[in-house]
Amino acid sequence: MRILEPGKPVSTPTRFSGILSPVVTPFDRDLNPDAQRLIEHCRWLLSKKVGLAVFGTNSEGNSLSVEEKLSLLDSLVDAGIEPGRLMPGTGCCALTDTVELTRYATEIGCGGVLMLPPFYYKNVSDDGLFASYAEVIERVGSSSLRIYIYHIPPVAQVGVSVDLVERLVRRYPETVVGIKDSSGDWDNTRALIERQWSDFRVFAGSETFLLQTLRAGGAGCISATANINPVAIQQLFAGWQSAAADTMQLALNEFRQLMQRYPMIPALKAAIARYTRDPDWGTVRPPLVELTSDQYQGLVSLLEARGFGMPGRCD
Amino acid sequence: MRILEPGKPVSTPTRFSGILSPVVTPFDRDLNPDAQRLIEHCRWLLSKKVGLAVFGTNSEGNSLSVEEKLSLLDSLVDAGIEPGRLMPGTGCCALTDTVELTRYATEIGCGGVLMLPPFYYKNVSDDGLFASYAEVIERVGSSSLRIYIYHIPPVAQVGVSVDLVERLVRRYPETVVGIKDSSGDWDNTRALIERQWSDFRVFAGSETFLLQTLRAGGAGCISATANINPVAIQQLFAGWQSAAADTMQLALNEFRQLMQRYPMIPALKAAIARYTRDPDWGTVRPPLVELTSDQYQGLVSLLEARGFGMPGRCD
Repeated sequence: MRILEPGKPVSTPTRFSGILSPVVTPFDRDLNPDAQRLIEHCRWLLSKKVGLAVFGTNSEGNSLSVEEKLSLLDSLVDAGIEPGRLMPGTGCCALTDTVELTRYATEIGCGGVLMLPPFYYKNVSDDGLFASYAEVIERVGSSSLRIYIYHIPPVAQVGVSVDLVERLVRRYPETVVGIKDSSGDWDNTRALIERQWSDFRVFAGSETFLLQTLRAGGAGCISATANINPVAIQQLFAGWQSAAADTMQLALNEFRQLMQRYPMIPALKAAIARYTRDPDWGTVRPPLVELTSDQYQGLVSLLEARGFGMPGRCD
Repeated sequence: MRILEPGKPVSTPTRFSGILSPVVTPFDRDLNPDAQRLIEHCRWLLSKKVGLAVFGTNSEGNSLSVEEKLSLLDSLVDAGIEPGRLMPGTGCCALTDTVELTRYATEIGCGGVLMLPPFYYKNVSDDGLFASYAEVIERVGSSSLRIYIYHIPPVAQVGVSVDLVERLVRRYPETVVGIKDSSGDWDNTRALIERQWSDFRVFAGSETFLLQTLRAGGAGCISATANINPVAIQQLFAGWQSAAADTMQLALNEFRQLMQRYPMIPALKAAIARYTRDPDWGTVRPPLVELTSDQYQGLVSLLEARGFGMPGRCD
């Protein structure tokens, strides 16, 4: 970990908007995180105007220890990645883990953190979840902390209701500043936007809802496929008021459906492996498994048939 | 952490049988684990012939960081608790966390570990879960490692199928030596027992299934209520072949139903708080919440109406 200068002023983060990617985490053949490859991928994403939601679900973030995540954050910042463009996932099962990660991310100047609720215990009360977030906020105790709530009930199985978000925003209006809604339920996303909390940033959890989200007044999306298809998604964000917006959305949908023929995380890594000509990029940590050879060939054929590329990444 | 003597011989653990308790974890008012109270509770449980499945679900084990768990293990062993009676929960979301905890538990001579599958990613394949367990076993690389698989789909939402257990037992017959089945599905527990793997130990996840489990050839149970009701559960284990066994099972069922009127973990802690006359025992970590005052009074009334006590714990 970095030795932080005591009392060093940290700039007040600007709230995020636009497109972020839950950056996939490369592993070496011994299943250790590979900082150098991660840096390269982050630089490419930034060059495409995509922010860095490292340690999200698609990053295999919960397959990494706290120590591994702290070390990767150090590597990214040491490599010159602007911390204000980082929104690391910091929500763990254990209160103390969440506090440690969140505190460090805040101290090094991350633009915000994406925070799952504690997700081991199921059917917990809103009071218990409120207490979880409040305890983290109080322990970190920083005016620079910016939390984006991470609502992903299909995976975490513990969600954050609209009413609970409202309680948190009312209690901590300068700290709880946004949400990633990966419920896949547009009614929920719309309800979050319609509450109109001051400058609150609602991100769709997939580009499938990007145009709807922006038209309703949302901030953007944080989407797995932005790892490999950032340009087209960013173009819709930039041009959502243009006449071509619906056509652009349809093209994004088609691309996502193509990817969803395969398990998403291994498929993203396989595509990067293909376009960087670096087969080790395909490595995933258990419990995930890599694409089979047949799946890999099928994916590559589909991508090549539509002339897919990762400009600037593959050359 | 303890400085371990290199090459120090660790005795080969005996496989567990009988009754174990997922030991509840006491916290101080700042929500930090309280080693001294944990030691006292463990000593009492051992005096009632109950083994120590620390860091289980009912221990709020997944609300503790790896560092906190390592520190508590040290405190227990330093206090003279026999490590062979410990079966700590070591299964985390992150491969590296599971390896670190499992390795340490093995090095200090724990009788075994109770290992959840990685539980963040859902709908993962048996191949992926097999790879998770195998990777941990290979990395720990100790002939003293004894793994009891922890199957608790209602909470973890990621289960370990009977066929997957069989694959693991066949590949690692001296290492994968048992299971705690907290599915609540007797057919699954029976199927595990009926496979008759050599000296494999099947534990029911609740005393409700204790008599059925023992009659079918299982090893015992690992049950939340053993935290406060160890004597009666141990008596059924000792007397399961007696004429009184069915009556004893009915009494255990009645007691469990009483406890299940309340959220289990806060209720267990409330009971201990009452009988140790130590209100701080009621403290839970978020996302759990303590019993309300009304719930506490209701629970105490129910317990006192049936003459409940914790002999040797309350004086």
